[in-house]
Amino acid sequence: QRRGRGPATWRRDVTAHPRLSCRKPGVRRPHFLHGPYPATHFGPKARILPNPTSVMHIQDPASQRLTWNKPPLNVLVIKKIRDESLLEPFKELCRFLLEEKKLVVFVEKKVADDATLTSDEAFSAVRTKLCTFREGYDDISDCIDLIICLGGDGTLLYASSLFQGSVPPVMAFHLGSLGFLTPFKFQSYKTEVAKVFEGNAAIVLRSRLKVKVVKELAQHGGEQENGAVWDIVAWLSQVLNEVVVDRGPSSYLSNVDLYLNGRLITSVQGDGVIVSTPTGSTAYAAAAGASMIHPNVPAIMVTPICPHSLSFRPIVVPAGVELMITLSPEARNTAWVSFDGRKRQEIQHGDSIRITTSCYPVPSICCHDLVYDWFESLAQCLHWNVRKKQARLIDSTDSSDTEN
Amino acid sequence: QRRGRGPATWRRDVTAHPRLSCRKPGVRRPHFLHGPYPATHFGPKARILPNPTSVMHIQDPASQRLTWNKPPLNVLVIKKIRDESLLEPFKELCRFLLEEKKLVVFVEKKVADDATLTSDEAFSAVRTKLCTFREGYDDISDCIDLIICLGGDGTLLYASSLFQGSVPPVMAFHLGSLGFLTPFKFQSYKTEVAKVFEGNAAIVLRSRLKVKVVKELAQHGGEQENGAVWDIVAWLSQVLNEVVVDRGPSSYLSNVDLYLNGRLITSVQGDGVIVSTPTGSTAYAAAAGASMIHPNVPAIMVTPICPHSLSFRPIVVPAGVELMITLSPEARNTAWVSFDGRKRQEIQHGDSIRITTSCYPVPSICCHDLVYDWFESLAQCLHWNVRKKQARLIDSTDSSDTEN
Amino acid sequence: QRRGRGPATWRRDVTAHPRLSCRKPGVRRPHFLHGPYPATHFGPKARILPNPTSVMHIQDPASQRLTWNKPPLNVLVIKKIRDESLLEPFKELCRFLLEEKKLVVFVEKKVADDATLTSDEAFSAVRTKLCTFREGYDDISDCIDLIICLGGDGTLLYASSLFQGSVPPVMAFHLGSLGFLTPFKFQSYKTEVAKVFEGNAAIVLRSRLKVKVVKELAQHGGEQENGAVWDIVAWLSQVLNEVVVDRGPSSYLSNVDLYLNGRLITSVQGDGVIVSTPTGSTAYAAAAGASMIHPNVPAIMVTPICPHSLSFRPIVVPAGVELMITLSPEARNTAWVSFDGRKRQEIQHGDSIRITTSCYPVPSICCHDLVYDWFESLAQCLHWNVRKKQARLIDSTDSSDTEN
Amino acid sequence: QRRGRGPATWRRDVTAHPRLSCRKPGVRRPHFLHGPYPATHFGPKARILPNPTSVMHIQDPASQRLTWNKPPLNVLVIKKIRDESLLEPFKELCRFLLEEKKLVVFVEKKVADDATLTSDEAFSAVRTKLCTFREGYDDISDCIDLIICLGGDGTLLYASSLFQGSVPPVMAFHLGSLGFLTPFKFQSYKTEVAKVFEGNAAIVLRSRLKVKVVKELAQHGGEQENGAVWDIVAWLSQVLNEVVVDRGPSSYLSNVDLYLNGRLITSVQGDGVIVSTPTGSTAYAAAAGASMIHPNVPAIMVTPICPHSLSFRPIVVPAGVELMITLSPEARNTAWVSFDGRKRQEIQHGDSIRITTSCYPVPSICCHDLVYDWFESLAQCLHWNVRKKQARLIDSTDSSDTEN
Repeated sequence: QRRGRGPATWRRDVTAHPRLSCRKPGVRRPHFLHGPYPATHFGPKARILPNPTSVMHIQDPASQRLTWNKPPLNVLVIKKIRDESLLEPFKELCRFLLEEKKLVVFVEKKVADDATLTSDEAFSAVRTKLCTFREGYDDISDCIDLIICLGGDGTLLYASSLFQGSVPPVMAFHLGSLGFLTPFKFQSYKTEVAKVFEGNAAIVLRSRLKVKVVKELAQHGGEQENGAVWDIVAWLSQVLNEVVVDRGPSSYLSNVDLYLNGRLITSVQGDGVIVSTPTGSTAYAAAAGASMIHPNVPAIMVTPICPHSLSFRPIVVPAGVELMITLSPEARNTAWVSFDGRKRQEIQHGDSIRITTSCYPVPSICCHDLVYDWFESLAQCLHWNVRKKQARLIDSTDSSDTEN
Repeated sequence: QRRGRGPATWRRDVTAHPRLSCRKPGVRRPHFLHGPYPATHFGPKARILPNPTSVMHIQDPASQRLTWNKPPLNVLVIKKIRDESLLEPFKELCRFLLEEKKLVVFVEKKVADDATLTSDEAFSAVRTKLCTFREGYDDISDCIDLIICLGGDGTLLYASSLFQGSVPPVMAFHLGSLGFLTPFKFQSYKTEVAKVFEGNAAIVLRSRLKVKVVKELAQHGGEQENGAVWDIVAWLSQVLNEVVVDRGPSSYLSNVDLYLNGRLITSVQGDGVIVSTPTGSTAYAAAAGASMIHPNVPAIMVTPICPHSLSFRPIVVPAGVELMITLSPEARNTAWVSFDGRKRQEIQHGDSIRITTSCYPVPSICCHDLVYDWFESLAQCLHWNVRKKQARLIDSTDSSDTEN
Repeated sequence: QRRGRGPATWRRDVTAHPRLSCRKPGVRRPHFLHGPYPATHFGPKARILPNPTSVMHIQDPASQRLTWNKPPLNVLVIKKIRDESLLEPFKELCRFLLEEKKLVVFVEKKVADDATLTSDEAFSAVRTKLCTFREGYDDISDCIDLIICLGGDGTLLYASSLFQGSVPPVMAFHLGSLGFLTPFKFQSYKTEVAKVFEGNAAIVLRSRLKVKVVKELAQHGGEQENGAVWDIVAWLSQVLNEVVVDRGPSSYLSNVDLYLNGRLITSVQGDGVIVSTPTGSTAYAAAAGASMIHPNVPAIMVTPICPHSLSFRPIVVPAGVELMITLSPEARNTAWVSFDGRKRQEIQHGDSIRITTSCYPVPSICCHDLVYDWFESLAQCLHWNVRKKQARLIDSTDSSDTEN
Repeated sequence: QRRGRGPATWRRDVTAHPRLSCRKPGVRRPHFLHGPYPATHFGPKARILPNPTSVMHIQDPASQRLTWNKPPLNVLVIKKIRDESLLEPFKELCRFLLEEKKLVVFVEKKVADDATLTSDEAFSAVRTKLCTFREGYDDISDCIDLIICLGGDGTLLYASSLFQGSVPPVMAFHLGSLGFLTPFKFQSYKTEVAKVFEGNAAIVLRSRLKVKVVKELAQHGGEQENGAVWDIVAWLSQVLNEVVVDRGPSSYLSNVDLYLNGRLITSVQGDGVIVSTPTGSTAYAAAAGASMIHPNVPAIMVTPICPHSLSFRPIVVPAGVELMITLSPEARNTAWVSFDGRKRQEIQHGDSIRITTSCYPVPSICCHDLVYDWFESLAQCLHWNVRKKQARLIDSTDSSDTEN
């Protein structure tokens, strides 16, 4: 007969410490997303050798809120093209920003020049006030205070590609169904935009990958002096989802080698390899079989595409590593690289692709918070763990069997 | 000053910035494993609202080295039991530590009392000097300066279970084949031990999960006062690999619900669910289909075991979240929980399992460094991406086909 | 300038033969499910050596229709127990079969004795006419003409277990949502039952596995004569879904060895192994990662459960092979076997489990046809390839990108 | 006559029938690979309606042996090109066949014209006796009695492509490592060839897929009469591994629709889809995640390539179905189809790809037998279930834990 408060009953071992605690439901510690500080002393005599030069000061992602030094003035509106259903919302939004909010609105020239818009008399007063720019000619990356996207996840990938350095905050609306990168419903855009302008919106810093394509100068006709190797950075890009190295238009992939911090890790034989951010883990990498990573985990994911090996499982490495991909020395075909699905280009012997985490993330404004939004997207976009309730695959309990 | 022709050729777009750089092979920046500081200003006017109370100061994992405040004196030696081949190495190591290094050596009582050892005259002088302890009775967790393991990964899991708070540094030897947690070869143990005593060894802080099993007191006969709910922490454990919730001896799993930071995320119908550390991602979670995570990624992995849903892919969440697992309200069977494969116990309605990252990691001494050791283990222990060289699954190029 | 009818343009190679054909949509050849007869002559001089003793005469599954030698009289009704929502349909069905169709209705004794039924005055006239039997005591396997199931897939597994030899045709109704084995909606039960009684219903012959657990007699105290080994068949069972060998209540699986036609194929280290029929490929095997096999493919599927090997992919072998599973000689723990989720029992050194395709399939009556029913179940029960329409994971085309 | 105690102990249920049997190890029933005849009577009154027109007479695959109507005379030798290491074996083999066996030897013209061969004086006498042919110009499909392949699996795919109707027996040698399709070691080629000439070799009939690309004539300028739709078969091919429909050189796949026996089954959004034979299930389909199917299972496998759906598991359907693939009506991009990795061509709206099992399999001569050869290839080529012996992923038993 147990008497008293009972904990002793639950004490099974010195390694298990029963405790009483009174929890009022709903009263919780603030949520951190980084783990706790790890202890730095280990037993009575050991500790980590302090190295002040490598100490980082990181604000916990769960407490990251957006604020404004000055009220935002210049707003870039990005609209998915070739989608008729977006025209009315686009016009409505531009009118609201220009006329009600008195903002400067930037749009792509080809969006403003769309025949449907130019022929719309009612919109012409607004249209003439829009500032336009052309991708690849006009650099607007230093003058935008806020980006608003209308459409699918691709609008955000495109916005990311316009800002190779610091990225202004992005507020992304879906019109039809929820996207991973477009958490806001357009219906309530006025109140949502107002709230963001007030400041204090929750944001998720979506890490990007800094990707360099490096070519040996000698290969392109340059002279070498004193035996030093001159590399040329032929391409520099910030990607939000992933870098894909694949066989491109060829039927056959060249073997590629994967290096991590300068060391050969493995060779890839197959359709290719995806190096993705956590944001990208729910995109192409998911299709290729990867586990899905919350965007606040500081990590890089490496996922093979249809590998010729039954044991080539995807791996997740720390955000700070430097990855390098080259053609394998014995490779007989070239490979192709693309950046967030764009700018596909060929990779030859002597070229290398160098990838690491960028210090310019995309500050993506949350609709609810960074945990809720992600799981909502998993369910809505990927039908994650959707299943028939109460209809178990191996259900034998509904038999007349009395034994089990 | 760039001059001459080359780079301009590669300039394709304002978003791509070609650069010249002279790289001497082998001269590299120091490797960080955490990513870079992310920018905190976004465009001209936005920034993160600083929140000093949530700023963390983290030393980059790549620079973590072990040092000693005082020379280590008390060494715990853990030996896999029931393995004849370990007896000679064990005796040799104990003699070396006691007689040459003049250390105090702790071993489990049942190891010291093993019949083969007690009957070995030649070893009796050493044996009598060993300090012994019994698990569950004698608490040695405050007096051990260094742990040395002989055997497989299980020895390290066991060592971890003995230290529910701070864990002394662990040096783990494999005798036969390499393990994920046992990087050192025994052959050169004298020089390896000497190096560790000198200090400056590279260490990987393997995060652990702090797991609480909470039972409602009312359920166990306790009275409730003023409507407050009294919980009792019936079990508290630090796990290095994983917490497993499964159907235990039953043929049928109860449905369990998974909460993250207090919010219901999903329900698990299947054989069970694994909540693992990155260290555990290469253990049971890998068998259940998870991607594999480097131990320095601050994350927690959630992997279903044979889920009754084709779309229940494993997920990786930030290290700081708090997970909770309960029986689903409609569940008709109980579930069972185990900790690193041990201490299996039943979970009933009203119970909850609460899991978050512990602040007491296991400081595991590296043989080479934290990147090399991990990839070496992937290759040796899991045959990761081992494949027949040059024998491509879909190789048609070796046909006489002239077209491709 | 092409002239004439054009095919020549399409003629690219002697190996490609263009042809003109006029197809009226909807007019199709009869569907066969077995492939065509393979050619038996190979080139000008080779052929298969005819072996009349191994020729099989197989009626194509697509043309299999049910017929009755005499009108069916004895009907077994199986009802999922512990499901209140089935009571009214059950009573309605019994009344219909007894009073309208004048049939003899068999039910399990415990179903008839259910308190809700015995206390229902209105049903008592029907209830007293029901024939009852007790599983394990009364053998009804020779006198049932038709089985009708009400409930989930488990009712069919249970029905299968009652008939270890020839199985009468089974007609299975789902009440709530569609099951893999329960294609009929209850709403229209009267017309559906009438159609089946008329004959000519499409049926799918769901193959079963014949499983023997063989124990060496010596192990159980029996004497050996003349060095001959006496085996005892300790268990003989027909399974419709799968045989599972796993670790049972133990935390650790013994290694088990898998033989095919007497030859050691591989060893299983992990949580266990599933040997399933095509019908079972959508049950537990699907949860363990197997591809899904249409029930008319004559095959046996072998699927590991959480294997300790990244490369242990499931395999599909021909229906006629004989598989054998034993504990590996070096195994330190026992294993457990179960049959369609029931009758779990321990397997020890010297025991073997022998599995092959049974000649007693379950003739399961189709609702539409054997192709439609299966794909309907894949979609409804497993949400196979359910996805967000037009929301591509890697969709970048909705960006403003003009290049792609 | 059973007497005494034992069996009764094992009798647990009327459904389990213990039996005594005396088995001499090594004495086994002949192995069938097709399953047993299924029963055609179900319970006392039901049976399958006999349909003589759909009865098939199939010789069990396990008993298929090759025989010769007349001694083979014309031998086609296929050599992997661009592989120096094959030259000496090739010359040796040709000399042997021509001079010792007095056969007529066919080789591809470009193989005979290889510079290394033409410049080899010692070989010129043999070389001039070789019969040469050019793919696409000279049709040798009716005059070859035996095919001998030297090199990798690609040589067999190539051989298959040369014979769009009946295929002569194929004997395939690997020089380096074993291939799935090349079971013979070259070292003992003389005795192996002699054995095959004697007849009675075991053969596996590797099923092929008959693939038609059908284009609507209207699309290509043809007139329509009376509203009938005129289709043109633009391409007809027999494939041994697989038909692949993918995005080809494009970055984006069009959606494609998959029909089975004329019914829309599902739509594919992703990188593409593979329709493969069991032989092909260990090639590209395995890389895309399919289970692996023994070549004697009469089935067709459908495997998505990086599908945009977490729940798009590969499926296995009966050999006799007719599959059709078209662009989805809403598709904005085209798709590309290839046949055993060759002859890639574009598919547009209105085109369809029709696939079913061919009646012209490839009779592939076994080295040992059809079971042994396959498992040997799984192990050698794919490292199937290769793992570290005795090093269990979740091994905690090697801890000092006494509880478990």
